[in-house]
Amino acid sequence: MNENVRTPVTATPIGSEQALKARYGAGESNFTIRTNETIEVLLSHRSVRAYLTDPLPAGTLEAIVAAAQSASTSSNVQCWSVIAVTDPHTKAELAKVAGNQKHMEECPVLLVWIADLARTKMLGARHDYPTEATPYLESYTVAVVDAALAAQNATVAAESFGLGTVYIGAMRNNPERVAELLKLPANAFACFGLCVGFPDPARPFNVKPRLPQRVVLHRERYDSSLPQEAIDSYDATLAAFQATENLPSSGWTKAMKSRWRDAASIKGREKLRGALIALGFKLD
Amino acid sequence: MNENVRTPVTATPIGSEQALKARYGAGESNFTIRTNETIEVLLSHRSVRAYLTDPLPAGTLEAIVAAAQSASTSSNVQCWSVIAVTDPHTKAELAKVAGNQKHMEECPVLLVWIADLARTKMLGARHDYPTEATPYLESYTVAVVDAALAAQNATVAAESFGLGTVYIGAMRNNPERVAELLKLPANAFACFGLCVGFPDPARPFNVKPRLPQRVVLHRERYDSSLPQEAIDSYDATLAAFQATENLPSSGWTKAMKSRWRDAASIKGREKLRGALIALGFKLD
Repeated sequence: MNENVRTPVTATPIGSEQALKARYGAGESNFTIRTNETIEVLLSHRSVRAYLTDPLPAGTLEAIVAAAQSASTSSNVQCWSVIAVTDPHTKAELAKVAGNQKHMEECPVLLVWIADLARTKMLGARHDYPTEATPYLESYTVAVVDAALAAQNATVAAESFGLGTVYIGAMRNNPERVAELLKLPANAFACFGLCVGFPDPARPFNVKPRLPQRVVLHRERYDSSLPQEAIDSYDATLAAFQATENLPSSGWTKAMKSRWRDAASIKGREKLRGALIALGFKLD
Repeated sequence: MNENVRTPVTATPIGSEQALKARYGAGESNFTIRTNETIEVLLSHRSVRAYLTDPLPAGTLEAIVAAAQSASTSSNVQCWSVIAVTDPHTKAELAKVAGNQKHMEECPVLLVWIADLARTKMLGARHDYPTEATPYLESYTVAVVDAALAAQNATVAAESFGLGTVYIGAMRNNPERVAELLKLPANAFACFGLCVGFPDPARPFNVKPRLPQRVVLHRERYDSSLPQEAIDSYDATLAAFQATENLPSSGWTKAMKSRWRDAASIKGREKLRGALIALGFKLD
């Protein structure tokens, strides 16, 4: 029997005007948007890297996964899986792969999002049909996009309950070790993790400013002019945010310089292609 | 000045109990979830392939893009762009690439989501720093995931206003033609489109059932048993849905057989790797 517990959104999202200011800085947020409760949940997103250990209330994980499954999927292929990891040992081992991110151990549930061509291949083998469309970069892309759309719905669902989340891309530092820990079959790849739990109120995180909207939103065709004054404006906004967070106040351009400089700046992930091939993917 | 117009969620989402039944079928939906207004928006998603031509109300596109920018992005790289296409000629040409999907011409706005390493490279060139981390499969993956997370937030935002959406993966049938139409610079790739508009009430679309939750949700580690009775249950549920929609009542296993059989079943997209390399990506 369904006895779904309907409660108001408990995220206590900040109002949309305040959220736009936090998202873009005062100088870039003076535009008008339509808004509602869901928009406020979306705009209020911040990554949370400090959790209480309290478990999720009953029915929460199921709601999060139902939301994830409600996302679109290419031709209904549903080429993703999610693994809910609560075991402290597994979380600790996964945290080691991801550069010792302590919040991966603190959070009560670490969701690991799988680009999953394995299910397709298992079904083909079981029913004796060929799956010769799997070894292409297109199929990898479909599986990664499917997993990402599902994960983002999961994130929105979690935040609507007042839970915090943070994506863990560093799961890709060593895909083969992750596959070993989670007993992944061939043709399944852990794209990223997602910590889910109650934010620790003693260690709050704030909304991080993003690029001015006019930098990412193009009209009719791509605008390659990339206005430098918009980048300058963002460098100043982000530096001011970093200062209030007691982070090195470098702005964005400098951070991107260090992020994109060389293969070493992606911390082993330059080997992703080789790792995927070892896991059974072809990427033709 | 901000004069944000706050209205209740206008999606008139179906209740969560009804939504779970629609999402999983009666036999697989007898579990309890926590719910709220946002969860109901998420669970009520359906792809809409019939639109009124009415434009989006003022402040709507800006809210959708602000929601998209509020999604997480790997190390704040923000490696995505979105192009809002309203020009009938461009929409018609893009529809030709995507197998003549008429709803791409009907909808007032077609959002094209760009995996965008071009901005990073432009900034590097402008400020004379190297961007040697871009030519890796990892960087392609970051850009695709960034674009997908942003697009899914956009989708949820649009649906919270009562708008309909549908993803257009067939934009990848010919990435070079799309790049030409949208004047994309090198290192920018149109991952997928997203139609946005008011659903035509005369041609309604319903929630499509998905795999039973226990097939995609694994606990602690990947469960490779893939219970055949769960697949059988889903084949029956999907076949019943297809019958009510006047579609060929094939179920899922048969549809997947035809979707994954051979390279021809992905309709030119087996050439994606070559197309991306022609567009400047390296995928090492």
